[in-house]
Amino acid sequence: MPPPDISGTTRIIAHLGVPTESFKAPMIYNPWFRHVGENVVVVPMGCEEPDYPAFLKHLFRLRNIAGALVTMPYKVSSVGLLDEASATVEICGACNAIRRGRNGALVGDMFDGEGFVRGVLRNGHAVKGTCALVVGAGGVGSAIAASLAAAGAARLAVFDQRSATAQALATRIAAHYPGIEITSRSNDPTGFDIVVNATPLGMNPNDPLPVDVDRIDPTAFVGEVVMASETTPFLAAARVKGCATQVGTDMLFEQIPAYLEFFGLRSTTPDQLRHLAELDI
Amino acid sequence: MPPPDISGTTRIIAHLGVPTESFKAPMIYNPWFRHVGENVVVVPMGCEEPDYPAFLKHLFRLRNIAGALVTMPYKVSSVGLLDEASATVEICGACNAIRRGRNGALVGDMFDGEGFVRGVLRNGHAVKGTCALVVGAGGVGSAIAASLAAAGAARLAVFDQRSATAQALATRIAAHYPGIEITSRSNDPTGFDIVVNATPLGMNPNDPLPVDVDRIDPTAFVGEVVMASETTPFLAAARVKGCATQVGTDMLFEQIPAYLEFFGLRSTTPDQLRHLAELDI
Repeated sequence: MPPPDISGTTRIIAHLGVPTESFKAPMIYNPWFRHVGENVVVVPMGCEEPDYPAFLKHLFRLRNIAGALVTMPYKVSSVGLLDEASATVEICGACNAIRRGRNGALVGDMFDGEGFVRGVLRNGHAVKGTCALVVGAGGVGSAIAASLAAAGAARLAVFDQRSATAQALATRIAAHYPGIEITSRSNDPTGFDIVVNATPLGMNPNDPLPVDVDRIDPTAFVGEVVMASETTPFLAAARVKGCATQVGTDMLFEQIPAYLEFFGLRSTTPDQLRHLAELDI
Repeated sequence: MPPPDISGTTRIIAHLGVPTESFKAPMIYNPWFRHVGENVVVVPMGCEEPDYPAFLKHLFRLRNIAGALVTMPYKVSSVGLLDEASATVEICGACNAIRRGRNGALVGDMFDGEGFVRGVLRNGHAVKGTCALVVGAGGVGSAIAASLAAAGAARLAVFDQRSATAQALATRIAAHYPGIEITSRSNDPTGFDIVVNATPLGMNPNDPLPVDVDRIDPTAFVGEVVMASETTPFLAAARVKGCATQVGTDMLFEQIPAYLEFFGLRSTTPDQLRHLAELDI
């Protein structure tokens, strides 16, 4: 089968953000769509901030729009433009995927954290019923904490040096998931099954570690959002302890099947997506 | 060089119209862009009519918009949305190409007729200083007449069974090109160097011929806009007379280099575009 090219029947997934130059999604999704003959194409659209609300509205009235991938600086401002938001979107206050629902409703979800959870599960570790510590209560930390809650974590600790930020996140999670035991006071990893760095610590060579690795249980699963290097100092230290780990780019590729399912498109494994991607990741 | 794929630096040419299913431009332009490594992609956008004015405005504010191909039902309504229109657009009252000019201005042009003129020239026939008869003063007839005027025809006859339509077209051409001798009363091809059918006659098997072919000069160049068959009965009759002819699809491919030049992109010959096109034309 020759690779299907763009035709009059092709549907569009808009990749919305500005600037667009660093976008990677077109080189990940489009090879997959060609591979399976899915007549959809991801197209970067560098919308300027003042135009975004009106552009988004009109974009989703196109007959051949299949959805949107939302990135900086529109993850937060998109939330107020949705007609329906997932619990994860409401907890994070951010949205990275939009599709059209019934009667033209804009339906939003957030898969940054879902990518992390899927990575944990693919590594053979449980989430349901576990205790998880998320260090960093910013955008990605909120998303991971919300997705761990959605996936059935029994106890969550969220920590941020900005204690009010961590407390507010804990309150939002508790409102959506009243059955979860949730705290926001400490980054002590003792006794946790899952420990995640969702701070920028590790981006720079001299950064301190985000938690005291000596206190991580060797049976804990340790994850990382920083992608500055494949193995950050935090992951390296966790591995020395004997911990299983997940690198930052795993989260990136793990979330793509979630997006594909959200858009109602054929999905696959992160490994196949990574193999097909026209990227050096 | 591997074919460049869509990336964060890719610019967009929107193909605007609705419905989009019959669009051919993506399969003509995109193979050319890949062939020369031009980082641009034609994407069909099925905009609904009530949304068109607002969508067009916001579309052209995207940082990575390179232009728009405009088709049914927006060729006429686009004219009122332009900041700058070519003489051809003003004469036709229709626009099939839009790009961004200085300070975000929307600049429109119309290449249906330019495609015909280029075909005449490529066939080794002159336009400058000649006498041309255009039968049919609708959208495509207006475009051909306007482009023949722009290319320096000395005398133009435009004819339509709706005589007021032909007269109005003649008046608009005269306003832009006061040096041209222009009439609108007869479809008698006697004495014309170029004779064009721009009516739908020939779409159906039992259609009468658009002009009395017996009265066409054997040295005349005869063109056709109907694409129902490669050689329409009109062209077949003209060839029997000994006339050189141009088929409908020639006009289609001849206009694409004009679009490419308008968008500031690398251009080529219609033959190369046709050779690369992923179409059976």
